[in-house]
Amino acid sequence: MSVNPDRPAEITPEELAAQTALYAPFTQAVRELVDATIRTTVDPATIRTAQAEVEAITARLREEQLEGSLGAHFGHGRARQPWGNTVVGLRNPVAPPLRPVPAGDREGEVHAEVVLGAAYEGPPGLVHGGVSSLLLDQILGTAAAAAGKPGMTAYLNLTYRRPTPLGPLRVEGWVDRSEGHKTWARGHVVGPDGPTVEAEGLFVLPRWARELLARRGDAEAPPAFE
Amino acid sequence: MSVNPDRPAEITPEELAAQTALYAPFTQAVRELVDATIRTTVDPATIRTAQAEVEAITARLREEQLEGSLGAHFGHGRARQPWGNTVVGLRNPVAPPLRPVPAGDREGEVHAEVVLGAAYEGPPGLVHGGVSSLLLDQILGTAAAAAGKPGMTAYLNLTYRRPTPLGPLRVEGWVDRSEGHKTWARGHVVGPDGPTVEAEGLFVLPRWARELLARRGDAEAPPAFE
Repeated sequence: MSVNPDRPAEITPEELAAQTALYAPFTQAVRELVDATIRTTVDPATIRTAQAEVEAITARLREEQLEGSLGAHFGHGRARQPWGNTVVGLRNPVAPPLRPVPAGDREGEVHAEVVLGAAYEGPPGLVHGGVSSLLLDQILGTAAAAAGKPGMTAYLNLTYRRPTPLGPLRVEGWVDRSEGHKTWARGHVVGPDGPTVEAEGLFVLPRWARELLARRGDAEAPPAFE
Repeated sequence: MSVNPDRPAEITPEELAAQTALYAPFTQAVRELVDATIRTTVDPATIRTAQAEVEAITARLREEQLEGSLGAHFGHGRARQPWGNTVVGLRNPVAPPLRPVPAGDREGEVHAEVVLGAAYEGPPGLVHGGVSSLLLDQILGTAAAAAGKPGMTAYLNLTYRRPTPLGPLRVEGWVDRSEGHKTWARGHVVGPDGPTVEAEGLFVLPRWARELLARRGDAEAPPAFE
């Protein structure tokens, strides 16, 4: 795999569709395994057999693999998606994944419906407080990018109004205002009884990213940094 | 599995050791599979075979499983650990896992050495900003609990000083001050070039948790809520 961070390889729509059809169901299968790993109550012998089988699969997958992470190889070009991303990554089993879509009428507003299971637990039966912050950091950054002002988190302030139950949730983000390379965004996690966690953050496009965009000359398609 | 949220089942030290010896390596094997799933470049046929095998393992694990999440069944009793927790859970493949240990000389101070790989990526080659907030929410809560003042996050403010590279990191948390059921904690993620993300948060033991502890009568061993 050749790597040119200044100009990630472009792929055709057909290649993108083929790779999505290959990797999306595979990654989803691993997500299901993660859930089953936490919740299973089968006997020790069955666990040990499963462990040996998982190790064998991993060994075969590792026969050819990237040296580092996925984004560091493919970046976030026009065709490439952030498939390694912890929150939205199609190829990342840790990602629920969140799928933000345009919604509402505020600047850059995006919503995502998500169901969080056992893998995202903090207090018994509740979403880990840090998972809410993880999802909100992502959706606020997505809102900034959707408004054409992508950036990396400079600060993020979270207010926890009530416990967030595991299960179906909605995550919403939008741009509050922007000024030069700075964008202030807001958002919240919404549970069955209303908003549970509120977030407010500042996103800034760092100088190294602005220089990268200038070298690439594709400022018209700014990358999503998170 | 019988469930009594007011009084989670206690297990003997021998049972705890046996379960740790069974589940820790199994969960670690699934963590390795998660990493390989993201980084593999093997051919499509090998991916499809791996998917079918993963689905078969999951089906066997699901033949007997908890109806919901792990913590909701076992809680956080004296012997039981928060094995389902997204950040520290021994049985949760999403957890790196963070292993905070007492360190330093500030109240409740805990440190954790951790290596974050491809599963925790945001911008290319960097830790997702929300992952830093996830780890910090956990370690600040752990510090509060270590100081004998456990609570759930009321607010969490994060300041991102510089990018956090994937790889070896240290996460530190300590108690700043406390007042009744409120505890203010601080912490940071430390990379090769120093602190990258700083956090300050308020942790409060909610009324329902205080009532639960009062019913259980084991206030001398308060549970870790995150």
